[in-house]
Amino acid sequence: MQITIIGVGLIGGSLALALKRAGDTTRIIGSGSRLETLERAVELGVIDAAEPDLSVAVQSANVIVLAMPVSHTADVFRQINDAVPETAVLTDVGSTKQSIIEALNALNPVWKSRFVPGHPVAGTEKSGPDAAFESLFDGRRVILTPTVDTDVNSLALVQSLWTNAGAQVCQMTAEHHDQVLAATSHLPHVLAASLVNCLAGMQEHDEILRYAAGGFADFTRIASSHPAMWRDIVEANRSSLLETIDQYAKELADFRANIDVADWDAVEQRFEQARSERAIFLEKYQSSSTTSSSDGESL
Amino acid sequence: MQITIIGVGLIGGSLALALKRAGDTTRIIGSGSRLETLERAVELGVIDAAEPDLSVAVQSANVIVLAMPVSHTADVFRQINDAVPETAVLTDVGSTKQSIIEALNALNPVWKSRFVPGHPVAGTEKSGPDAAFESLFDGRRVILTPTVDTDVNSLALVQSLWTNAGAQVCQMTAEHHDQVLAATSHLPHVLAASLVNCLAGMQEHDEILRYAAGGFADFTRIASSHPAMWRDIVEANRSSLLETIDQYAKELADFRANIDVADWDAVEQRFEQARSERAIFLEKYQSSSTTSSSDGESL
Repeated sequence: MQITIIGVGLIGGSLALALKRAGDTTRIIGSGSRLETLERAVELGVIDAAEPDLSVAVQSANVIVLAMPVSHTADVFRQINDAVPETAVLTDVGSTKQSIIEALNALNPVWKSRFVPGHPVAGTEKSGPDAAFESLFDGRRVILTPTVDTDVNSLALVQSLWTNAGAQVCQMTAEHHDQVLAATSHLPHVLAASLVNCLAGMQEHDEILRYAAGGFADFTRIASSHPAMWRDIVEANRSSLLETIDQYAKELADFRANIDVADWDAVEQRFEQARSERAIFLEKYQSSSTTSSSDGESL
Repeated sequence: MQITIIGVGLIGGSLALALKRAGDTTRIIGSGSRLETLERAVELGVIDAAEPDLSVAVQSANVIVLAMPVSHTADVFRQINDAVPETAVLTDVGSTKQSIIEALNALNPVWKSRFVPGHPVAGTEKSGPDAAFESLFDGRRVILTPTVDTDVNSLALVQSLWTNAGAQVCQMTAEHHDQVLAATSHLPHVLAASLVNCLAGMQEHDEILRYAAGGFADFTRIASSHPAMWRDIVEANRSSLLETIDQYAKELADFRANIDVADWDAVEQRFEQARSERAIFLEKYQSSSTTSSSDGESL
């Protein structure tokens, strides 16, 4: 057995480490465009071997994992197209799913039915193989978004891969995935970046940052995420994100209106609702392994 | 020596514990409107004794600390007015300062020059004496906002009180304080509450919260703060807060416009700026004791 992971950064590297931890003896080949990243991943023991040539890297693979930014995926599809073995199963880890599926449909490769779109909802604000760690996916959700074309056996194989890596696997449509992630992840990233930039643009810039306390550090942690990756995510999920930004702007405008007309009961009611909704969220959906901020972020 | 703390919750209680830790043998009397809270504070060893009658509680005090929500401060000023000893120094811990000073000026008590407006920029989303802990103020900033009327010796005494409690003390005008805190604390609270409420109002409410990961939990932690307290803060700092909400809404609208016209370079630039500004913030202004989310939040 051989798994080829294209992109051995935080997500690809952590998947390799999680599979090793599970006692999986499958040989893990790393590939990607940056030679020094590949060498570093070998040095760290994240992958068993590096093969910078994508075609060579995939030609003996049983499973091919595409773990690069969403904007590069279509290009990688094209580069490996002729080299994908007849029985290999492919999957990706992109944060948006409709754009990936559209790119696949445009190429319409013979291995299309063996491609299982996936998204591990896990990460940290760090990147690169040095940031990878084996428990990144423990208790985290991995969303698979099979299409009508997706082969059931390929789906089952990718599902078991993630289960071995410690994740909880679930399925939904790509469209639904993109809407849900726009709300829970992409919107918060835009809001956090906007807050930092808003404060940085104020007159007493230095003074303001000086007095920002722990709450600000938490609130804006996701603003330290990788800019190029987030550019790609925003681009790939443009329409869903625009919609959620509008919903948020409306919510904020309503809150502002309450303050403007001095409706303090309404203001308190908003804080009250937020507190109770967040309590429900923590109780129902956060396992003990995911409540700590150091555990990662929604990607 | 006797210190009377009116309000023995998170802030008042933690101050008492921090002073005890510093070896301060001053007797600490707790007062406040809720008998069960006072009894609990005695039971926990937070205060040495409880005196529910405000006038009695302050009449032998050398220092009087007002540690209740900002909206109650004016009322407490009136209740203790006749009982404040001739030499007692007073201070408060309110999150907004102009409204407190206005209330004081309206009452114009004889002890006005001995009142030192203060704000410890520390806290957690919890409240009550059970939430109090001795290290809450360690390395945190306490902002004192003396007026032209404030006596220098009173100012020095309050300064030493907070230094003993582990805090870094600084001074600025009340107006400046309210602007800075609107940006660094009050605005983030409004944004976090709005995000939770926005998501809670979406159609796939349950599904959306299910897939919100660690980043969302961090981002919205401050949305779990005390609703009545935040109602008061918003009310007390209405004009500065409205101004900062408008600045933020403009920033968000500009970000949205970049996405709408597909200006991905501008989008990346925004994420890039946010990351570098936040890095500066963490490097320059966050000591190691304040980078962890469990340490507290900006109040």
